[in-house]
Amino acid sequence: MTSPEPQELSLLEALHSTPARRYLSGKPISDDVIRAILDAAIRGPSAGNGQFWTWIVVRDPETKRQVAQWYREGWERHYGSRRDQILNAPDGGPLSKRSFLAADHLAAHLEEAPVWIFPVLLGAAKSSNPRLGSSIYGAVQQLILAARAYGLGATLTTLHVGHEDDVRELLGLPEDALTMALIPLGYPSKGRWSQPKRRPIDEVVHFERFS
Amino acid sequence: MTSPEPQELSLLEALHSTPARRYLSGKPISDDVIRAILDAAIRGPSAGNGQFWTWIVVRDPETKRQVAQWYREGWERHYGSRRDQILNAPDGGPLSKRSFLAADHLAAHLEEAPVWIFPVLLGAAKSSNPRLGSSIYGAVQQLILAARAYGLGATLTTLHVGHEDDVRELLGLPEDALTMALIPLGYPSKGRWSQPKRRPIDEVVHFERFS
Repeated sequence: MTSPEPQELSLLEALHSTPARRYLSGKPISDDVIRAILDAAIRGPSAGNGQFWTWIVVRDPETKRQVAQWYREGWERHYGSRRDQILNAPDGGPLSKRSFLAADHLAAHLEEAPVWIFPVLLGAAKSSNPRLGSSIYGAVQQLILAARAYGLGATLTTLHVGHEDDVRELLGLPEDALTMALIPLGYPSKGRWSQPKRRPIDEVVHFERFS
Repeated sequence: MTSPEPQELSLLEALHSTPARRYLSGKPISDDVIRAILDAAIRGPSAGNGQFWTWIVVRDPETKRQVAQWYREGWERHYGSRRDQILNAPDGGPLSKRSFLAADHLAAHLEEAPVWIFPVLLGAAKSSNPRLGSSIYGAVQQLILAARAYGLGATLTTLHVGHEDDVRELLGLPEDALTMALIPLGYPSKGRWSQPKRRPIDEVVHFERFS
């Protein structure tokens, strides 16, 4: 087990150097580190501070094996089936070839990530509110950043949701629960902490009015 | 104008000490600081790195005056109308009396916050996907944390959305745009950077299965 001592890292540096990490080693993560990361995550916001959330930590190989199959179905449907098209296109789209290959690797090796976290909202299974996530995804980002402090890579994924009912049952969640993401955590085995590539702010920021 | 030099602050300390700040001074925020904060925000995740977002920075008093009226309608409907009930209840609910009074203050003084940010998703106006926010609220949390690095307080609010069509028109947004939040920014005039009170992780975290 790795020591739970976090790295010294400044806030702004972390905000600029925490990309999705999709090549993860199977090295175990100590309970202390998992708890520390979750304790930072739950400082994030929720509407009226309601915290109608639960966080499921999964390490069981059998649970991971089953969900990984469902995840791969989602990956294949949304991305994998466009493999040739994406890899033969000129680069420059939002999903680079390198990111595609990394996500393809993650889908194929998902169960090797030693710890998964499912952030879940209770009372939300029937929600059609597109802003529902304002009550949990801020906390999810805190989780990803806290993981970074402990040298752990993470990715926000949702490709399991084609089997939402199955996942809910497998995790013993109540009927009104909605899984909001699946976050594989692990010590990175490839790649580095570099600034995520994004469209420049001059393209996406407008002062006073959009047009 | 305040210098745009950020504070030295460690990542983990920031994750544990960035509550919603609702008492904000009218002191101006420099353009450099606004741009630095947004440049950190957009390093956050979006599905397939699509970045179907735009960020509207509002300082115009007339725009703020109009939206603040709509915001106060939302505040009154969802919270303000329960003022006596909330303030006379025994404390211990998710929304403390202190937080209620702070949010009541914010609603009454919203237009005094020198800068507002609207994070917007394009192509999302008709979405009924409860996980839509996975493509922007992580970036919003990065924005709130980056603001913290520059000594600026922020709050994730959505109380303007009862007037979504009006806001969209006022900001010159395309018809398919959906405003995902309204984030007032300002130098705090009251309160402090303390750990947000949350339910303890032993109540909200489960290993392997919920039950």
